[in-house]
Amino acid sequence: MHNKILLTDEEIPRQWYNLNADLPTPMQPPLGPDGKPVSPEALAPVFPMNLIEQEVSQERWITIPEEILNILYRWRPAPLRRAVYLEKALNTPAEIYYKDESVSPAGSHKPNTAVAQAWYNKQFGTKTITTETGAGQWGSALSFACSLLGITCKVFMVRISFDQKPFRKIMMETWGGACVASPSNETEAGRRFLKEDPNTPGSLGIAISEAVEAAVTDKSGTTKYALGSVLNHVMLHQTIIGLEAQKQLAKIGIKKPDVVIACAGGGSNFAGLSFPFILDKINGAAIDIIPVEPASCPTMTRGIFTYDFGDSAGMTPLLPMFTLGHNFVPDPIHAGGLRYHGMSPMVSQAINEGLVKPRAVNQLDCFKAAMLFAKTEGMIVAPETSHAIAAVIEEANKAKEEGKKKVILFNLSGHGLMDMVGYSKFINGQLHDHKLPQEKIAKAEAELAALPKAAVAKTGKW
Amino acid sequence: MHNKILLTDEEIPRQWYNLNADLPTPMQPPLGPDGKPVSPEALAPVFPMNLIEQEVSQERWITIPEEILNILYRWRPAPLRRAVYLEKALNTPAEIYYKDESVSPAGSHKPNTAVAQAWYNKQFGTKTITTETGAGQWGSALSFACSLLGITCKVFMVRISFDQKPFRKIMMETWGGACVASPSNETEAGRRFLKEDPNTPGSLGIAISEAVEAAVTDKSGTTKYALGSVLNHVMLHQTIIGLEAQKQLAKIGIKKPDVVIACAGGGSNFAGLSFPFILDKINGAAIDIIPVEPASCPTMTRGIFTYDFGDSAGMTPLLPMFTLGHNFVPDPIHAGGLRYHGMSPMVSQAINEGLVKPRAVNQLDCFKAAMLFAKTEGMIVAPETSHAIAAVIEEANKAKEEGKKKVILFNLSGHGLMDMVGYSKFINGQLHDHKLPQEKIAKAEAELAALPKAAVAKTGKW
Repeated sequence: MHNKILLTDEEIPRQWYNLNADLPTPMQPPLGPDGKPVSPEALAPVFPMNLIEQEVSQERWITIPEEILNILYRWRPAPLRRAVYLEKALNTPAEIYYKDESVSPAGSHKPNTAVAQAWYNKQFGTKTITTETGAGQWGSALSFACSLLGITCKVFMVRISFDQKPFRKIMMETWGGACVASPSNETEAGRRFLKEDPNTPGSLGIAISEAVEAAVTDKSGTTKYALGSVLNHVMLHQTIIGLEAQKQLAKIGIKKPDVVIACAGGGSNFAGLSFPFILDKINGAAIDIIPVEPASCPTMTRGIFTYDFGDSAGMTPLLPMFTLGHNFVPDPIHAGGLRYHGMSPMVSQAINEGLVKPRAVNQLDCFKAAMLFAKTEGMIVAPETSHAIAAVIEEANKAKEEGKKKVILFNLSGHGLMDMVGYSKFINGQLHDHKLPQEKIAKAEAELAALPKAAVAKTGKW
Repeated sequence: MHNKILLTDEEIPRQWYNLNADLPTPMQPPLGPDGKPVSPEALAPVFPMNLIEQEVSQERWITIPEEILNILYRWRPAPLRRAVYLEKALNTPAEIYYKDESVSPAGSHKPNTAVAQAWYNKQFGTKTITTETGAGQWGSALSFACSLLGITCKVFMVRISFDQKPFRKIMMETWGGACVASPSNETEAGRRFLKEDPNTPGSLGIAISEAVEAAVTDKSGTTKYALGSVLNHVMLHQTIIGLEAQKQLAKIGIKKPDVVIACAGGGSNFAGLSFPFILDKINGAAIDIIPVEPASCPTMTRGIFTYDFGDSAGMTPLLPMFTLGHNFVPDPIHAGGLRYHGMSPMVSQAINEGLVKPRAVNQLDCFKAAMLFAKTEGMIVAPETSHAIAAVIEEANKAKEEGKKKVILFNLSGHGLMDMVGYSKFINGQLHDHKLPQEKIAKAEAELAALPKAAVAKTGKW
């Protein structure tokens, strides 16, 4: 029995995998407010050109620079572990494996792209990077990466998480980053949202608006913005997770998993684990691939596929994606990293192609799953990750009903050591489920109808 | 260049190393209040007999039960990492390696013995284990281990840490453990200390008194007490750290380190890393072995070697060790795990033999070292561990002055993700050093003179 499957440094994947090269229907381009495709050059005030090139690349394999690997080696290759004690507790014939991304210094998968983005920015001459963060995983990861590379980091943290997870701010400060609650008084967008609702819990959409504004209004030209999810180049950097997992499963003689599961907020940890397996699926393998989202923010399962802004103030280009509308402010669930109105265009396209099948789960089921995981496997996972585990338990129970010895693989995207307030509330019966009223979806649909959307009709459901 | 050196599951050490078999002068026995050696049977109300047998064992190698290894495999063998970025920042010719014990589910080295103690208790029929905890690392570790083995866990947590680190309590609860602040109203000892000083920050000595009392006064006879440090069997269980490190260094062609460093509160993470290297030293290798303690609780560097109680209420046998007196209440520094009046008798004996050379460091130097480590290596370490890093930096600078390419090995005993309040205070200039007035030592000396001590004169300094 293999409790954990390790790779040596020498076995680390040396290329990222770009799903863009293999999607049956090509991705549609981002649009400007005029409804016309945005040129790569138009993104130059926001991102360095080397990352913009990756954003639009159609190459299947992109070489990981040696200097980035040298930083990733601190914690990568990440272990693949088998959840033998969870299997026993569930009395399932299924074998459950997980990639443990919690072993990074920042405690999640986020440093995989934070290091890459900081490194490309450094090459480009960027001195300061601005960003948003939900639960704080991304802000911590970028602060960590910027610290190693000598770049200044400024983080706008969604208010509700800022209050729920005070230690995340100190982590960022320990790595030399600066962190303010969003909406803040530091940007025009922030001041506007604060005026509308001084008690707003904030949202990733609002925080993105602030971070983008802070980058593009800096007159030195050496400030850029970094996004921790959603965009193509972020998905690309995360594919190292799934590529490692493939090598690790092969080491113990498993040709392919039957089920691949990860939680999805903006989509990056899901994409990171699943995209290499989507390629297998495109090539004929039978694999159920499941992104899991909160029922309170059901972008993939109840949202609309259309063009929408990535942020709440409408500062970004329009992206072809599943969305609940950029004005949607999700309920303050503890999985702050999943409180996003949209979804990665690449993941959205994979949904449209029928390559992956999204699922929504309730908060209480997630914490219940996380508690079982802690008491069997011993690890305390992030509330985001608990969504994946809730779906894993569903699939393991299904395998039991069917009497099938399935291989289930999931992404343990991060630890929950900064999320103990959520655990405490769950233990003390202070949490509840959040249901999204249908009126809110209808309202979003009406608002979205007014945005440019011509191209979407070709492939989208709408 | 090797960023990390891993072992496979198959390479895990299968025996613990017992320094008792090799100490040049035999250890002296614990004494009862009458000054006579305590028999193993007399300890039976407190510990299960299988652990008492380990406590008094003279065997050099003790086989680790397969079932314990099966649990340890979740995170062991632990990585040996090289601190290449810290080396660069210090511009030192020294190579700095560390065992990363932060990778355990509870975040420190403590589960190495927690799992073993819970397992032996389970074999013996124990239903409930009581314990104390300082910073919370031990209480978390025992809750984790008890959770896996189906044992009830009750933790008395030193008041100051209980207040500084609220999330530790929730961790314990997540694993099903119960945790109260010590001194508490639940024991006679606790009530007495609260009466003396209702605002006491508490101490490990007080918390031990409470946990021992709670165990021995349970009439069912199925409640035992577990100690996270100090005792011989705890040191034994931790030696897996140093035994792994020896294999890992050998893998990259290093025959022996020149310097071995770990922080020491009760002594267990120090013992775990260093005892296998002490054997090398007894066999002729030249190695500087340095336990590091806080200047505010300088048990080894300014304490007295004599017989003293392990707890503050005088409920334990008298142990031959370095001590500041069992009534000593250390200042509330953030390294809660190092706030202990005594020191493991085995480590104390190794000091007396000249095999190891203790050192004391100040709180501000420790946090400064931890910040440098975070900004170079990326990892946020526990305040306890920062003491080791402060000494590592001193030794690396010394190697630079001497122009010597030394190999320095230290124990990264735990992460600091539950200790962000301490980091925040340091960043904001709210911490200071704590100096121990000589009068306090003199007072302890006078009190200790009244205790039985005949046997000590033979080998002790005093």
